[in-house]
Amino acid sequence: MDKVSIGLLGFGTVGTGVVRLLSKDRERLEERTGTKIHLEKVLVRNKNRPRKVLIDNRKLTTDVHEILENPNIDIVIELMGGIENPYRYILRALRNKKNVITANKDLMASCGEELLIEARKNHCDLYYEASVAGGIPILRSLTDSLAADRIQKMIGIVNGTTNYILSKMSHEGLPYNKALASAQALGFAEADPTSDVEGLDAARKMVILSHLAYSIPVRLDDVKIMGITDITSEDIFYAQKLGYTIKLVGIAEVSNGDIDVRVEPTLLPDGHPLASVDNENNAIYVYGSALGETMFYGPGAGEGPTAVSVVSDLISVIRNMSLGVTGNHIFLPRKELHPRKDNLVESRFFVRLHVKDQPGTFSSITDLFKDQGISLERLYQEPVPGKEIAEIAIVTHVASKVLFEKTFEMLKKLEVVLEAKYLRVERG
Amino acid sequence: MDKVSIGLLGFGTVGTGVVRLLSKDRERLEERTGTKIHLEKVLVRNKNRPRKVLIDNRKLTTDVHEILENPNIDIVIELMGGIENPYRYILRALRNKKNVITANKDLMASCGEELLIEARKNHCDLYYEASVAGGIPILRSLTDSLAADRIQKMIGIVNGTTNYILSKMSHEGLPYNKALASAQALGFAEADPTSDVEGLDAARKMVILSHLAYSIPVRLDDVKIMGITDITSEDIFYAQKLGYTIKLVGIAEVSNGDIDVRVEPTLLPDGHPLASVDNENNAIYVYGSALGETMFYGPGAGEGPTAVSVVSDLISVIRNMSLGVTGNHIFLPRKELHPRKDNLVESRFFVRLHVKDQPGTFSSITDLFKDQGISLERLYQEPVPGKEIAEIAIVTHVASKVLFEKTFEMLKKLEVVLEAKYLRVERG
Repeated sequence: MDKVSIGLLGFGTVGTGVVRLLSKDRERLEERTGTKIHLEKVLVRNKNRPRKVLIDNRKLTTDVHEILENPNIDIVIELMGGIENPYRYILRALRNKKNVITANKDLMASCGEELLIEARKNHCDLYYEASVAGGIPILRSLTDSLAADRIQKMIGIVNGTTNYILSKMSHEGLPYNKALASAQALGFAEADPTSDVEGLDAARKMVILSHLAYSIPVRLDDVKIMGITDITSEDIFYAQKLGYTIKLVGIAEVSNGDIDVRVEPTLLPDGHPLASVDNENNAIYVYGSALGETMFYGPGAGEGPTAVSVVSDLISVIRNMSLGVTGNHIFLPRKELHPRKDNLVESRFFVRLHVKDQPGTFSSITDLFKDQGISLERLYQEPVPGKEIAEIAIVTHVASKVLFEKTFEMLKKLEVVLEAKYLRVERG
Repeated sequence: MDKVSIGLLGFGTVGTGVVRLLSKDRERLEERTGTKIHLEKVLVRNKNRPRKVLIDNRKLTTDVHEILENPNIDIVIELMGGIENPYRYILRALRNKKNVITANKDLMASCGEELLIEARKNHCDLYYEASVAGGIPILRSLTDSLAADRIQKMIGIVNGTTNYILSKMSHEGLPYNKALASAQALGFAEADPTSDVEGLDAARKMVILSHLAYSIPVRLDDVKIMGITDITSEDIFYAQKLGYTIKLVGIAEVSNGDIDVRVEPTLLPDGHPLASVDNENNAIYVYGSALGETMFYGPGAGEGPTAVSVVSDLISVIRNMSLGVTGNHIFLPRKELHPRKDNLVESRFFVRLHVKDQPGTFSSITDLFKDQGISLERLYQEPVPGKEIAEIAIVTHVASKVLFEKTFEMLKKLEVVLEAKYLRVERG
């Protein structure tokens, strides 16, 4: 095989990064693959828009058929975003026996299984390392490097936008809105940040990770999702007082043969390796049955990191092509286990209460926990200045979720309790 | 391919882990590979020694030829340790067209290139993920996942024994000897800990990592090595006072077309992700040109983690066998760059001085640095109780190494300076 030809769908940030890497490191990549790598066509919306990287204008096209139906093109790299068009284009590319690389988590989380089956049927590769945690090679690690182990649990900080916002709130005491505005100003958050801050983006990544780690076809509907829009700087402040950091984490856990996938703001003990993963960085903590605990840390997005993942996938596809083994590395779920929407049995919990600052308040609350058989691990109380109100922050010991929720409902009904909220606490 | 047969060389800790994993997870592994996995023979020193895992005694042999010359055996897993015998056995296995998996870093660091060439010549696989950082999939990440990037620098905590010792010294204030004894009692250090504490083990791992990251044939002789036997609890105490943690790190760095590989006790700023990698854990920090910074963290040794790496390699070999592409994933150095033994141009430095506690001492030292044009970033001074001596601990700003060493020699000759030592400081 002397040469491979590539068609690129989309020329935004990541597309620019891929073109940059292919041109800057051409010699090294060609030496590594033993093949000339030719960028044949790039699908764009507007051919006349200025580009951040040098490209022959004749390679640009607004007609996707010039790529999908082009017999010269061996590999299609999809970097458009969205679901409907990429879905149709990738399906068409695979049916035309083209190998595909995509960074599209939305697509892979919603139609990944179908596309992977189509790829295998056509003896084509479909790689998507860049779809989860940009520059962190977590997908390949799950399918190859940790293949021998039984994964029991994964905890991931897999959304850079929310991690940036929570880091700003934690370190600078900013309120949510200001932290969001700062993220938007730096390009870490979209103008419409909904899918990030509501936890949907993280949930999509957890769907992809769960599929690879557990070989179970989890669907987005199976994931219990809670975003960070209700997290206040006071929540963060009182969590810190008790020795915890609040992070938006995705958790996928197998217990008693059921799988539970959740995305929710969670308190991590300050010593937990994930607690110090700051700003727009991502990290995935994996608990393996034989392996123990291992963590993958790095940039979760951005032109360079995501392009490295895409082009590393490209090197793998080219290698498979020259060995004549494309379509053989497709990993499909094998188990029919039905995931449960909420499998959480027991946990520590963080409770914040605004209470009337009057004699007996404190003991009426601790008595309630005691009567319900929930013991308290840490507790912090202080008056709210200028009001007849006190703040109480509590971290419980491990308790059954059912019992805790019942107790929390009783707490809210106490005459002295004015406001109450709770979050889950991860073990150290 | 219905079945693969395996011959195991060595039945110590990792061998036991491999047998345990193969028997416990047989069903899942066979489903994953689509092949029956049959353990045919295990080379042992003593057939009658009690074993920690159930095994048919007829599989044990003390005669290596029953494995190497056995036409039924497709894959040889070498877990003996040492260099000479494993070298001969692996060479023989490859020439008999058997695929090989090894966890032997000593062997791969000293004869890896030769064995890899032999493997390729015989169209056989030679995988060795477990040879560096036990359960952390760093080798595959370098060759596959980060293949598209130019690695600029790697910093690794790749020796669990020394990291355990330094963690004990840091957190419990133990002197070196007591921390070593504690490591030995827990099985984290050998009775003869020389190769760990002198930095040789870490150097071997850096040789293997450099080969994969830079495609350069680094040899053990090219590595500048300094162990931890001279590190005192006072060094650690004063480093902590200035905001640093002392770790034994391996560094492999490319600059100006030269490569510099070193192992030395180094001060890491407390915020550095490697600074919080404690006890027997390992971590490798990778700086990529496009990727930025990424870290791989996990257990560096132990039965379970190492066995997971070995069996994951096994899954890859079986996949390659069934596709008929063994021997095609061998990564050999291509560049002829000659590594320099010490390429360090500039750095921050940590200096500890015992000085006469008398008027003018302090300024004579700071004046010397000032006259030499080296500015000081942090400084700590305190009297040593009961003596006419003061301790001065300094972290310099970045300075040229040549200039610093000249200045350090001048420092030692000052009449007020009784003792002096220095260590390198890594940037944050």
